[in-house]
Amino acid sequence: MKLTDPKLPIIHDRHVSRPADRFKVEQLDLEFSNGERRRYERLISRGLGAVIVVPMPDPESVLLIREYACGMHRYEIGLPKGRLESGESIIEGANRELQEEVGFGARSLVEIGQLSLAPGYMTHVTHVILARDLYPSRLPGDEPEELEVIRWPIADLVSLIRRGDCTEGRSIAALYMARDLAGQV
Amino acid sequence: MKLTDPKLPIIHDRHVSRPADRFKVEQLDLEFSNGERRRYERLISRGLGAVIVVPMPDPESVLLIREYACGMHRYEIGLPKGRLESGESIIEGANRELQEEVGFGARSLVEIGQLSLAPGYMTHVTHVILARDLYPSRLPGDEPEELEVIRWPIADLVSLIRRGDCTEGRSIAALYMARDLAGQV
Repeated sequence: MKLTDPKLPIIHDRHVSRPADRFKVEQLDLEFSNGERRRYERLISRGLGAVIVVPMPDPESVLLIREYACGMHRYEIGLPKGRLESGESIIEGANRELQEEVGFGARSLVEIGQLSLAPGYMTHVTHVILARDLYPSRLPGDEPEELEVIRWPIADLVSLIRRGDCTEGRSIAALYMARDLAGQV
Repeated sequence: MKLTDPKLPIIHDRHVSRPADRFKVEQLDLEFSNGERRRYERLISRGLGAVIVVPMPDPESVLLIREYACGMHRYEIGLPKGRLESGESIIEGANRELQEEVGFGARSLVEIGQLSLAPGYMTHVTHVILARDLYPSRLPGDEPEELEVIRWPIADLVSLIRRGDCTEGRSIAALYMARDLAGQV
């Protein structure tokens, strides 16, 4: 599938700072069962966890988004995702993110697993939600620009990975999980 | 496959600090192609990148490790991985991590892709290395205790995911990538 490349944002200014409010580090003094003592550090997630959504408009397709990824300073293709907000359930959060980022709601939303980001040093947990029975519905998001939505055949994840701009571990894991589990949930 | 649970380390002390040397934050002042200006923050990776290794002792099996994961404060099953060291190539780093964490070296090491961690706000990149033609070889690592090595049938990733202690996005993504690509590289 041939896609047109979007135009990268301009970097006007950059500086390195002491980590800001968004990132908090906890130090742990640990004793292992063999008596070994170690000091470990981990990044503490702010908030209530996150959701990643696998929207399937039909059993053969998945909807992906293309979004500017600041960490890589390039556009990345992946699944819609975001942080849970106060007072909403995991399923409600998934349906909100889906409407904000893809422009669809779902009548069927099922949690098919949980993914950690870097379990060795991050507390971050992402719930994987399979979304089916979609209907057009748009909620306003906080994105700086409209996100491109791409319909991809879920049988062909190899071509997607080989593009080089769909690299997020969680997106790739969630796509395969959906492919393996969609028939069973 | 039935596994015995290892004993968690004791937490003697914990405190939250200003993020330490390990984590550095960069602030970017960005202008999107539609003229929208935003300030983004991202976590800067220290070092030269990381490797994750998929060791296949035969075409049907993969070797996993079970290791204490401080971020989740539980033992997690996943693939061997680690940071690249100064002066070593990606392939050399992969073979070193394999010998440190699994007790095998590999005569065949092939990079089958790259994974980002959280491309929206982290610069972290992990090279995925398929390791085959293994031979017993142990290098000393810096782990606080010996790692348990588990041989798992690569055809049955669903049971692995359903255990609830194999949750890392990169490990799951790399396992599926190896399963899909091993026949082609």
